[in-house]
Amino acid sequence: MRVCVVGCGAVGSLFAASLAQLEDVEVWAYDLDEAHVRAINESGLRLSGAGELTGRLRATSEADELPACDFGIVAVKSMQTGPALAATAHAFPDGAVCSVQNGVGNEEAIAEHVERVIRGTTFPAGRIVEPGHVQWDVQGDTTIGPFEPRPASLEECARLADACTRGGMPTTALADARGPQWRKVIFNAATNPIGALTGLAHGRVCERPDLRRLVSALVDEGKAAAAAQGIELDADPEELIDYAARKDVAYDHKASMLQDVEGRRPTEIDYLNGGIVRFGREHGVPTQLNEAVVALIKGLEASWTS
Amino acid sequence: MRVCVVGCGAVGSLFAASLAQLEDVEVWAYDLDEAHVRAINESGLRLSGAGELTGRLRATSEADELPACDFGIVAVKSMQTGPALAATAHAFPDGAVCSVQNGVGNEEAIAEHVERVIRGTTFPAGRIVEPGHVQWDVQGDTTIGPFEPRPASLEECARLADACTRGGMPTTALADARGPQWRKVIFNAATNPIGALTGLAHGRVCERPDLRRLVSALVDEGKAAAAAQGIELDADPEELIDYAARKDVAYDHKASMLQDVEGRRPTEIDYLNGGIVRFGREHGVPTQLNEAVVALIKGLEASWTS
Repeated sequence: MRVCVVGCGAVGSLFAASLAQLEDVEVWAYDLDEAHVRAINESGLRLSGAGELTGRLRATSEADELPACDFGIVAVKSMQTGPALAATAHAFPDGAVCSVQNGVGNEEAIAEHVERVIRGTTFPAGRIVEPGHVQWDVQGDTTIGPFEPRPASLEECARLADACTRGGMPTTALADARGPQWRKVIFNAATNPIGALTGLAHGRVCERPDLRRLVSALVDEGKAAAAAQGIELDADPEELIDYAARKDVAYDHKASMLQDVEGRRPTEIDYLNGGIVRFGREHGVPTQLNEAVVALIKGLEASWTS
Repeated sequence: MRVCVVGCGAVGSLFAASLAQLEDVEVWAYDLDEAHVRAINESGLRLSGAGELTGRLRATSEADELPACDFGIVAVKSMQTGPALAATAHAFPDGAVCSVQNGVGNEEAIAEHVERVIRGTTFPAGRIVEPGHVQWDVQGDTTIGPFEPRPASLEECARLADACTRGGMPTTALADARGPQWRKVIFNAATNPIGALTGLAHGRVCERPDLRRLVSALVDEGKAAAAAQGIELDADPEELIDYAARKDVAYDHKASMLQDVEGRRPTEIDYLNGGIVRFGREHGVPTQLNEAVVALIKGLEASWTS
């Protein structure tokens, strides 16, 4: 089996290095960071922290170099999905391409470029510490399944899930993989922009009763948008929010959107709260607070350009 | 007539210097900024810009020095009302005290310290450029009237209004002065925190359709809270919002709350959106978006202390 990881940042690297542990999988990585690519090709891709391993794989910033692959695993930032797939789609003439990105709407963007798409949600997290070296902060499960409008087969999903699991990233294939995806997008949409707008880490957001109420009100809108689509959440996002707020879990964690705001980089708001608003609108579900949050974050992004 | 201006910042200075033009009014100013007090006592209080004049008055940072006054005009930041009145209430044994502050709830705080209270709303604005010298940015009207739970008489209100008008600050006394006050608090609550959360000046907030929709949704909640109290707005706050967004008016104006956030000073959120939420709750009016905005601004304030 040949797999190409599209976007070899922190999450992409976890998949790439893990899959590279397997004899029966050949791993390629496509990434625009040339220093990272060079380090991977010279010394392998090293993970440390929650797992310690080095994966041998081929990395490139030149999409032309990619051979035909059986699977793609897309891990670029949501707003880069379109350009990344436009560049790499030729590598998946018969392959199935799986998103492991944040938010909703990524599979739709992938489906504009390839025939068979896999919906995916992953909970592990990490960060690049230097070219070729990723700190694995949090272990966790991945759930994948056919993307309904342009599906890969469940059997293909099961093959990819089996490889990821054997490589060290526990992955389940389901006929309907929307439950975990919506649980995660609701979690992220209810907490990330609140951290980004206030500058507070996750635990401090949660311990302020007024902000925790706002978080729950955002969760409720997301749950209503999911329910209107017939999506059954695999667990209550509120549990994840409270769990993450524990001092021994992610109390001091600055949401990735807060990190983006501090670095004045575009955020993933369109795929988080923006996705909830879009799906809510399609299904007649009011999402006033999520709309407000989208407007505020996009206003904040606009303030960086005068 | 003897008048003491409590809080001689920008707005207080406009009243103090204007009233000091009148032969029949003796003006005192109470302010904690000792350099400003010293400059006023040495060289008078100078206004420039929309009006050019210098007022001769007595200023002090020592409340004990204040003589008994017929009127007080309170112009401290809302959250300083309690302490400022606790210090100065002895100067109003038979006097009536008028708020010209932003927001709602200030008269209630004044009424905890003095017998007769005047509700007031003022539109002129300026800023201190150096001790003893205030830039007068915007002229405008002031409306005052008896504070219903602890009222000064309408006749007293008329006397104070007459003096302010003769001094150069056009002021009207009304039996019910709540209309202009709620118009202004709705305007401020719908726009100031949006500027503060996004970093955008007023005109840029208004030209973004998504933010302008949020502004209008905040206005609608405020209007509903006013209507439930039987308050008739003297004009639509939306008109003021659009007027202020004009390039020749206040397009580039950074809301005072944005200035507070940039300077990491406590904001007046409790008296703006917080006031709308409080009165809304008392009258059974939902104010979900104003509540969200209060939580976000208070979270932002909390982020400045680790």
